[in-house]
Amino acid sequence: MTEIANGQQILPPDYTLKEPEPEHCPGPESENAGKGDSCQGCANKEVCESLPKGPDPDLPLIKENLANIKHKILILSGKGGVGKSTFTTMLSWALSADEDLQVGAMDLDICGPSLPHMLGCVRETIHESNTGWTPVYVTDNLATMSIQYMLPDTDSAIIWRGSKKNALIKKFLKDVDWDYLDYLLIDTPPGTSDEHISINNYLKESQIDGALIVTTPQEVALLDVRKEINFCRKAGINILGLVENMSGFVCPNCKGESKIFKATTGGGKALCNELGIDFLGSVPLDPRIGRCCETGESFLDEFPDSPASTAILEVIESLRDAVGDV
Amino acid sequence: MTEIANGQQILPPDYTLKEPEPEHCPGPESENAGKGDSCQGCANKEVCESLPKGPDPDLPLIKENLANIKHKILILSGKGGVGKSTFTTMLSWALSADEDLQVGAMDLDICGPSLPHMLGCVRETIHESNTGWTPVYVTDNLATMSIQYMLPDTDSAIIWRGSKKNALIKKFLKDVDWDYLDYLLIDTPPGTSDEHISINNYLKESQIDGALIVTTPQEVALLDVRKEINFCRKAGINILGLVENMSGFVCPNCKGESKIFKATTGGGKALCNELGIDFLGSVPLDPRIGRCCETGESFLDEFPDSPASTAILEVIESLRDAVGDV
Repeated sequence: MTEIANGQQILPPDYTLKEPEPEHCPGPESENAGKGDSCQGCANKEVCESLPKGPDPDLPLIKENLANIKHKILILSGKGGVGKSTFTTMLSWALSADEDLQVGAMDLDICGPSLPHMLGCVRETIHESNTGWTPVYVTDNLATMSIQYMLPDTDSAIIWRGSKKNALIKKFLKDVDWDYLDYLLIDTPPGTSDEHISINNYLKESQIDGALIVTTPQEVALLDVRKEINFCRKAGINILGLVENMSGFVCPNCKGESKIFKATTGGGKALCNELGIDFLGSVPLDPRIGRCCETGESFLDEFPDSPASTAILEVIESLRDAVGDV
Repeated sequence: MTEIANGQQILPPDYTLKEPEPEHCPGPESENAGKGDSCQGCANKEVCESLPKGPDPDLPLIKENLANIKHKILILSGKGGVGKSTFTTMLSWALSADEDLQVGAMDLDICGPSLPHMLGCVRETIHESNTGWTPVYVTDNLATMSIQYMLPDTDSAIIWRGSKKNALIKKFLKDVDWDYLDYLLIDTPPGTSDEHISINNYLKESQIDGALIVTTPQEVALLDVRKEINFCRKAGINILGLVENMSGFVCPNCKGESKIFKATTGGGKALCNELGIDFLGSVPLDPRIGRCCETGESFLDEFPDSPASTAILEVIESLRDAVGDV
């Protein structure tokens, strides 16, 4: 059996050595990388010399740019299609409904940006000024940033490897003029790869309040969510809680409830109990949520009486509680 | 307006220049990279010198290893959670139901592998022999490969940047002893990033039959699927057709149909008409599909009378037709 994960580095930097490190290697990321006696004749010499040394000089700049942001929340899930962007959208609408709160929503999904569509501003563009990139304002107190605003047309694929995505994420943090915000909501793509490693590294000095984990009830989603929780723990990201999405479907004809994505292993609640994570609630599947996301309208405003609206608002209250805001 | 995508390179290699290319730059990937007159004093010199030159020497080895595979099909979608892995699983069960066909299913989703769970072999492990890595056999004529088989436990996160994922994908192609296969089905993660760029590059000499695109009906999924189609066209990947998943839900109580993910813009069929792609069919949402994926059973065997089974088998017939197999 080959267990490649045992030797895996946590949060590895983005390089490949040409041969294994020699004896007495000073370490590819040390100050003396490429300069030691054992470096002479080593095939890795050039790679090691060219690696950045010491802490990233941009981290203090990111910290300064985000200094006026009170709460930073990551929205995470191992799996795609569980409702991360939908929930980020709901959170954005719900928080910004309070005119006294300034809210920002950042879309880290570089290859599949959804936030602009769901917030109804897909055709907006970014403007650059002396103070940096100006985000797109959905309302007076709701600002958003996404690669979607920079594309020549909506169909354009972003065919980028990790390193290019990382560079853009850094710009979103360092060069976007977010100004004062009560909340910065950071929507992430599925997985535990470049975007996730980078956002955590880049925000090391700026501090994240923590992560909201989104899942659906079925085991195949929980399997990926367990990996995401494992990532948070290894990376030192505080988990604010977990929300279970699409938990049941009430037929509009007969009002009978169907478990479309069935919790064969107890769903999100059982997972939270097992792993010691706060369960923030279940949100039933309401097709009108998807329809509001299609038209860029706030589901919470359009259908305040839906059981899904009640559930979402309760989750948001618990989340604000978890970051010490209420 | 900043249109960063206009200057974007298609299928860029994995490096970052320290400053823009100077005048008379021989090109970072040319034979003379780092050696030209204009390279002297250029901050990129070291990066350019260390970049691999010419075609990847592993491509002929990959070609040789895959020489006995008749059809290679990518399963793609811009968006997560639309049913790529579910459909790959269905395809695997359906094709391998014919005892005369040898089928392989490769899981390129490194951070969120689902295939082993859906095929009911999540606890299997990989064995290494003289002829390479032996895939996990679900049945006598259905072989699978996934990073899941290499993890110390199912919860372990794979916290890997793109470059490490690419290295593993190359091993899956070069070192796995697939032997003779009629079909190799390649399940991909969402997006258009490292995994997608790499699989296309690595299979350049081995030839892919093409890609099956999976979507759900709502516009927010189609938005990402358009990007995936754009990627296929830029990368020269033949599109075999598109299947629309979760197209309608029939309530088990009242038999009334609900459009859970509503096709506000005409869904997959309209998209196919617009972009000149073959529409292979719609598969209705049947919660029993998800339940079979939870237990690793074949939905097609368990519920042959479901309208979803009929729809899936029709899509598979069209797909075999598209690769010239029937």
